[in-house]
Amino acid sequence: MLKIIEPTLLLDEAICRDNIRRMAAKAAKSGVRFRPHFKTHQSLVIGEWFREYGVEAITVSSVRMAEYFSARWRDITIAIPFNIHEVERVNALPGTCAVNLCVMHPETVAQLEGRLTRDVGVYIKIDVGYGRTGLLEGTPQLGQVIASLEQASRLTFKGFLGHAGHSYYVTSKDQVRAIDQESRAVMRRLADRYSARFPGLETSLGDTPCCSAADDFSGVTEMRPGNFVFYDLTQLRIGSCDLDNIAVAMVCPVIAKHADRLVIHGGAVHFGKDQLTGENGQAEFGWVVEARGRGWGGPVEGLKLAALSQEHGTITGAESTLESYSVGDFVYILPVHSCMTANAMRRYTTLDGTLIPHLEAG
Amino acid sequence: MLKIIEPTLLLDEAICRDNIRRMAAKAAKSGVRFRPHFKTHQSLVIGEWFREYGVEAITVSSVRMAEYFSARWRDITIAIPFNIHEVERVNALPGTCAVNLCVMHPETVAQLEGRLTRDVGVYIKIDVGYGRTGLLEGTPQLGQVIASLEQASRLTFKGFLGHAGHSYYVTSKDQVRAIDQESRAVMRRLADRYSARFPGLETSLGDTPCCSAADDFSGVTEMRPGNFVFYDLTQLRIGSCDLDNIAVAMVCPVIAKHADRLVIHGGAVHFGKDQLTGENGQAEFGWVVEARGRGWGGPVEGLKLAALSQEHGTITGAESTLESYSVGDFVYILPVHSCMTANAMRRYTTLDGTLIPHLEAG
Repeated sequence: MLKIIEPTLLLDEAICRDNIRRMAAKAAKSGVRFRPHFKTHQSLVIGEWFREYGVEAITVSSVRMAEYFSARWRDITIAIPFNIHEVERVNALPGTCAVNLCVMHPETVAQLEGRLTRDVGVYIKIDVGYGRTGLLEGTPQLGQVIASLEQASRLTFKGFLGHAGHSYYVTSKDQVRAIDQESRAVMRRLADRYSARFPGLETSLGDTPCCSAADDFSGVTEMRPGNFVFYDLTQLRIGSCDLDNIAVAMVCPVIAKHADRLVIHGGAVHFGKDQLTGENGQAEFGWVVEARGRGWGGPVEGLKLAALSQEHGTITGAESTLESYSVGDFVYILPVHSCMTANAMRRYTTLDGTLIPHLEAG
Repeated sequence: MLKIIEPTLLLDEAICRDNIRRMAAKAAKSGVRFRPHFKTHQSLVIGEWFREYGVEAITVSSVRMAEYFSARWRDITIAIPFNIHEVERVNALPGTCAVNLCVMHPETVAQLEGRLTRDVGVYIKIDVGYGRTGLLEGTPQLGQVIASLEQASRLTFKGFLGHAGHSYYVTSKDQVRAIDQESRAVMRRLADRYSARFPGLETSLGDTPCCSAADDFSGVTEMRPGNFVFYDLTQLRIGSCDLDNIAVAMVCPVIAKHADRLVIHGGAVHFGKDQLTGENGQAEFGWVVEARGRGWGGPVEGLKLAALSQEHGTITGAESTLESYSVGDFVYILPVHSCMTANAMRRYTTLDGTLIPHLEAG
């Protein structure tokens, strides 16, 4: 039974499962491995839902997450350039769990070879255009890393891994599709160049905008989207989803009512602080939606979460609309960035009131 | 013994204690109660340090924090307009702990009176110019709330509480002092108007910029700053502190090195996502400082934490400076907003390697 008293992250399991089902079907149709990124939900319980759609291998973004998910999963890629200081934690991961690391630097390979007491698979991180981490396809460093991997005994070179994070900075499906095409082209050229030398070479991509916009995933061997499990207002703006694909909403009590604003208990410690820019140029930290049934419905015209401090949130909009809320009412709000809101809230409440733990649960 | 392997929030206890000592001395000199806000550190251990400087009463910003600190404290103000849905949690707080709530609406007073099973003190939240929550001094609602409090048996009207949060939006001590003067003037007028009717009436203010800029706290009965315990780059920009008053720094490993940037393991899940705007108009999420002794020293010229994603941070600056860092090195970074960084990190590591828990510790 759902009883809300404080800021609560509601999860609509039916929407969430439908998001998983659609993405898994797209991967299956394209014949590529679906290795979803679990950094968005960070939950063993939600992880189990993926299994019902055929998922056997997962992606995480920290050794800490690998430790957590290794309780239930047997094939984990840690998709962040490896921090050599955590090598002992990798050694301590269950031997029954296949572990893949990402590297960019020959010295990391040498240090891993010297300190690993278990076998790992290794992907070379490629910069497919995002410009955050990864090697450019033409850099001599790429050959150096491959050479160092060929000589290593504990490390098996698996292939190339990229993340087209620049897909988050565009606002149309056509632009996302262009990024998707360019990223695949990079991977295809790498495959063409190295497949003969490394049979079974893998190419792995996978951000939610590209994976949502693409009609099929052909041209790579693996896709790793994460955010699609919940989606959010950022993905809506990019064109990755519709409003009714967003699977999480915050519920917050109104604690102060003014003519021109409502103040809720619900701040940066609950939502995170990612923001979008609204049509009027104002910051938006969330959109107010209607309460509907046990969950939520469409947007309440013009009501936005316009400011966040540590524990307070300020909702603005037309005074006639604000007037209909009272102190003590609960307001439903779609988050700007569901990964960060989930990480801040550290647990989920389903529409029937079931609590679902998050890795970071207190 | 300090051994860092992953993103770590370092706390320099000597700087922190000095920040507490100076603020406590200023309060004592002015003859006002020092009721520090514990939302910044959220730690029972750090809370104990305040006791050595005479602190007996504290401020928190949620019932959850009141529950946590009630294990050790006997006088707690929950400085957020009260969410009536949490009344049972207030009833469950230890009877030995005096609890003060904040209200703005007569209906909240009526609901509290009907549902409280314990006595509480009540402050009326006043808007001293910030424009977030609180009643304006001239509004008829103020008289209505006071009248409802006079008739309540479980609630004792204590006085007026304000938060000059607009002090965060200015960038000089003179501007902060002007806000401080205006806020005190509001409180003085309220005291003049209501003191005869309510002997012992309290007036409580206290944001870190105003409390740091003020030479004395006279004119109110209580001050409630919080952030000063650590300070941060936001306070430095406002003029509330010097660089060497900042008591916390993040330490993060370099995981990728490019000619024009370093990438660290350390993202929005570690730092939070508050940002400042640098001289060149670029976003700044932190400043790189030198490692020095067991702690840190001054800024490394021009190196800024320029971008954050969930787990990654990107440091930019002069290529000649970036060149001196290697993959695997640890970078020391002063945070933009220490309250949010502490809340994200959920624990502290002192310079001698002692772990200090945070309320949100996993």
